[in-house]
Amino acid sequence: MITALKRLLVGSPMSTAQAKHERLAKIPALAIFASDLMSSVAYAPEEILLVLVLGGVAALQRGPYIGLAIAVLAATVATSYWQTIHAYPSGGGAYVVASDNLGAVPGLVAGAALLVDYILTVSVSTASGVAAITSAFPELYPHRVAICVSCVVLIMAANLRGIRETGRIFAVPTYWFVACLWLLMAGGFYRLATGAVPPTPPAVPVEEPLTIFLILRAFSGGCAALTGTEAVANGVQFFRPPESRNAGITLIWMATILATSVIGVTYLANFYRIVPRAEETVMSLLGTEIFGRGWIYYMIQAATAVILLLAVNTSFAGFPMLASIMAKDRFLPRQFANLGDRLVFSNGIVICATISCLLLVVFQGDTHALIPLYAIGVFSAFTLSQAGMVCHWWRERGAGWHVRAAVNLFGALVTAVVVGVITVTKFVHGAWIVVIVIPTLVSMFLAVRRHYESLRGQLTVQGFSPPKLGRHPVVVLVGGLHRGVVIALTYAKAISPNVTAITVDLDPTATSRLQRQWQEWFPEVPLIVLDSPYRSVLQPVLHYVDQMEKQRDGDYMTIILPEFLPAKWWQHLLHNQTALLLKTALLFRRGKVAISIPYHLNQ
Amino acid sequence: MITALKRLLVGSPMSTAQAKHERLAKIPALAIFASDLMSSVAYAPEEILLVLVLGGVAALQRGPYIGLAIAVLAATVATSYWQTIHAYPSGGGAYVVASDNLGAVPGLVAGAALLVDYILTVSVSTASGVAAITSAFPELYPHRVAICVSCVVLIMAANLRGIRETGRIFAVPTYWFVACLWLLMAGGFYRLATGAVPPTPPAVPVEEPLTIFLILRAFSGGCAALTGTEAVANGVQFFRPPESRNAGITLIWMATILATSVIGVTYLANFYRIVPRAEETVMSLLGTEIFGRGWIYYMIQAATAVILLLAVNTSFAGFPMLASIMAKDRFLPRQFANLGDRLVFSNGIVICATISCLLLVVFQGDTHALIPLYAIGVFSAFTLSQAGMVCHWWRERGAGWHVRAAVNLFGALVTAVVVGVITVTKFVHGAWIVVIVIPTLVSMFLAVRRHYESLRGQLTVQGFSPPKLGRHPVVVLVGGLHRGVVIALTYAKAISPNVTAITVDLDPTATSRLQRQWQEWFPEVPLIVLDSPYRSVLQPVLHYVDQMEKQRDGDYMTIILPEFLPAKWWQHLLHNQTALLLKTALLFRRGKVAISIPYHLNQ
Repeated sequence: MITALKRLLVGSPMSTAQAKHERLAKIPALAIFASDLMSSVAYAPEEILLVLVLGGVAALQRGPYIGLAIAVLAATVATSYWQTIHAYPSGGGAYVVASDNLGAVPGLVAGAALLVDYILTVSVSTASGVAAITSAFPELYPHRVAICVSCVVLIMAANLRGIRETGRIFAVPTYWFVACLWLLMAGGFYRLATGAVPPTPPAVPVEEPLTIFLILRAFSGGCAALTGTEAVANGVQFFRPPESRNAGITLIWMATILATSVIGVTYLANFYRIVPRAEETVMSLLGTEIFGRGWIYYMIQAATAVILLLAVNTSFAGFPMLASIMAKDRFLPRQFANLGDRLVFSNGIVICATISCLLLVVFQGDTHALIPLYAIGVFSAFTLSQAGMVCHWWRERGAGWHVRAAVNLFGALVTAVVVGVITVTKFVHGAWIVVIVIPTLVSMFLAVRRHYESLRGQLTVQGFSPPKLGRHPVVVLVGGLHRGVVIALTYAKAISPNVTAITVDLDPTATSRLQRQWQEWFPEVPLIVLDSPYRSVLQPVLHYVDQMEKQRDGDYMTIILPEFLPAKWWQHLLHNQTALLLKTALLFRRGKVAISIPYHLNQ
Repeated sequence: MITALKRLLVGSPMSTAQAKHERLAKIPALAIFASDLMSSVAYAPEEILLVLVLGGVAALQRGPYIGLAIAVLAATVATSYWQTIHAYPSGGGAYVVASDNLGAVPGLVAGAALLVDYILTVSVSTASGVAAITSAFPELYPHRVAICVSCVVLIMAANLRGIRETGRIFAVPTYWFVACLWLLMAGGFYRLATGAVPPTPPAVPVEEPLTIFLILRAFSGGCAALTGTEAVANGVQFFRPPESRNAGITLIWMATILATSVIGVTYLANFYRIVPRAEETVMSLLGTEIFGRGWIYYMIQAATAVILLLAVNTSFAGFPMLASIMAKDRFLPRQFANLGDRLVFSNGIVICATISCLLLVVFQGDTHALIPLYAIGVFSAFTLSQAGMVCHWWRERGAGWHVRAAVNLFGALVTAVVVGVITVTKFVHGAWIVVIVIPTLVSMFLAVRRHYESLRGQLTVQGFSPPKLGRHPVVVLVGGLHRGVVIALTYAKAISPNVTAITVDLDPTATSRLQRQWQEWFPEVPLIVLDSPYRSVLQPVLHYVDQMEKQRDGDYMTIILPEFLPAKWWQHLLHNQTALLLKTALLFRRGKVAISIPYHLNQ
């Protein structure tokens, strides 16, 4: 039944030979990888304004300058990454670049930062997408957490089906959102050009003085716009050949659209005197101001919601991909490297969805709390990746390496400064969590790696001599004489000439009846009666087995447990689960083999 | 660690030989078995008034007459039960009496009613006890559910320690509560006698007309006072010899104290014009009226809370006892008949506590909703028990059997009328649930009995011929060549001359490397490579095993799974749990024995 449900949700299994058909053309690739970066236009300007509003109307007017700074930052990062994509045509995420050029630990720091970011992207984008819906339909606001979780589950299911199908699903809405953004800006500037009078500045209480620190904090919030850049570099191998060229062009397009949109939105928000608030998004306020609450407004909100929800997909492509690379390097459990039966890294997808849903529930669908955690990780990864690229060019010293190294060095320095700014300005707002989470993850990665390495040594057959079994002792645990016991004894005698039966004396009458019957059925097998003053079966048996240990002949001994299997599930509740407890206890004792001999009941 | 926690909570194990010391003298026995019956004085008058208040002040004045009717009922039931105790000195609960004299199904109906009642007693008494606390300290009212659950868990722990110790704990508070009740009544009547003027009647809106139906509904609520009578009859064997005499005297004492208290409290409540309400109990209102909120008031509230919480203990003695009797008759899973390591029926105690806590959480600690369910069950059990006694005297025909039979017949008729009254007046208030629950439980008991009976037939060794093993085929599942595999192969060769190795081809390079190594280590064992187009290990192996089935030699085949056991628990997460999945899948296939051969890692 579980199998049937899985087939319905994710489709029938795909054979390994089908893998090569799963590549992406540029247009759907742009759609998949652009959705994350593009969608951040929906919340990054809001993050800027939400900080500035604390400084009152005068502070809000600084919005466009911060938008411009974010645009410059986007150009710098995109240029740096364009170089990375060409240098690493097989996929050059920060983890790969930093590991290759700076060593294992910087690579793991980048890897940890990115894994956390992918999960946070799922949570933040889902919450923002649902916020676009609840801005348009305020009556849905109380149900936002349930809506968020349902969306994540649906997108997870789409991803478990496989990447090509999701690519097709995603192409239309991404382009639709870009069109809507342009429509919003065109409408805004048209009204401005045709002499629309800006509304009177609303009364905003000044809660904090307008300091450079406040401006930098607003800038830190806006940096969330750049999350998603990494996705392209990590996914180069999903593009159609020539992979690097296609991925590079996709990246430059994306950065251009992003930069112009952030500038446009912050400028218009300032012109139309937008004051951000919790229950309605800045995009919604701006749309209402420019077009009124007509069909154009609802179309823009719908496009925003859809792009944000689809942006979650970037992480559902990125997280499992990175986890599988790290699992192949043995820093993560090997299960993450297994292709599922639809040729996707199913375990990574499921883990990513599970943790994001937990975050959505814990934070009650509120994105602002998560954004500091997220921006700091993204920019740490940028810095490590660019620093790695500088080392890369230094070592390769190909034609024009000076220029290339200088570009990446500039990128590394700029993003390092941003990391510093975010850490300082957002420390109390949650950035401190990153300081705990990333080192924890890195030490987990190292522990996993150490385990797999020690495993190889412990399991090698080089110089290993097989154990001796000798007159292999077999012990059969007997409760009363029934068919299951007869079968178990037959089995025991077939596998060893050295069989003993034991029984625990819980009821003297039953025990002496058993002893009488035993003489009749198995006179050749000794039956040992164990005392149990405290009415436990487990303790006397384990004690006996440990005693036997000292006098055994070979390296292993076998304990046989006759077990009858009821025909219906509820009947299991009517029997003591002694066999299961005993098997579990014996599993952790060396040199013991526990065997259940099943006897299947018919009714 | 779990073991250490258990020892701390319930104490060290007690040997079977200690059982005979666990009997009770009359004084602590009265304390244990009286707490339930006595404590109902705290809520039964309130149940009467809560119905009457719907009919306004005129209806409230009928309270004392209903109290008198309850007292008469208590005398009738106690007399009937006094006879039962003498007729069944080894413990004569309704289940035993009805089964013995009326047949299995009436017995099971009584048993089901009582099991439900014990659980409801735990919930209702806990909720009422906590209500006594929150009446005195209203600021605790919002936390009542958490307080209720903590109390149940504490009392469960006390009971898991064993009955004699709980007897000692309970003696003082029970007598203290009786003293407080008498103090309350003495104070009330003293003020009345010294000419206290009753307060002016408060304005109570009339919500329902004062009909005979309303009076009967109030009477039904008051019947809750009699719950707990059964406990003595069921627990006769816990008294010191002469058991019947001691238990009988205890019962008569209890009934006398109960009857006088119910009359006294309803009379005083009428005199002092008490109007019941949700946030404060009638006992608290009465105490405040008579003594003011001084230390006497707080002492009475404390005694009420303590007796109610300790009353829960009656059920923790009664439920496991009845469940064990029914389990010995094979109507309940045999686990209920096992004495735990402290000589108590631990499984029954834990199940009773779990279900009561669930009810407390679901009903948010509100007792009134549960009381109809509970009274109907108690009185059904009374009726069946008394009817059984009539048959008993009829069959025995000893000296004076006519009188004895007449007493029980009267008891049966009165309680049958009460069942009818409660069912009719409380049907829409929850009594309908009983109509569903009791037949469901009875059919479950019968299904359990059928299973155990069919088991006996299916497991009998009479005429059973042991299976043939022949050249018993053994299949070893191999992933790669490591020490665990070498050990598994050694074991396989020791138990059968007919060994085959199989491997699933997930990676052609690894498979051909394995084939080369295999020739070197085990040239005599054939290695069969299974294809797996969808990268699953489970499916090809199960398919192969099913194929083998058709060509096997004996009745059983063995599948050996080499398994390495990591040294630390978290390392399990780093390995695929294929062996576990495969063992589970094989357990449900007939004629297969799955063996894990463990190889313990050191680090």
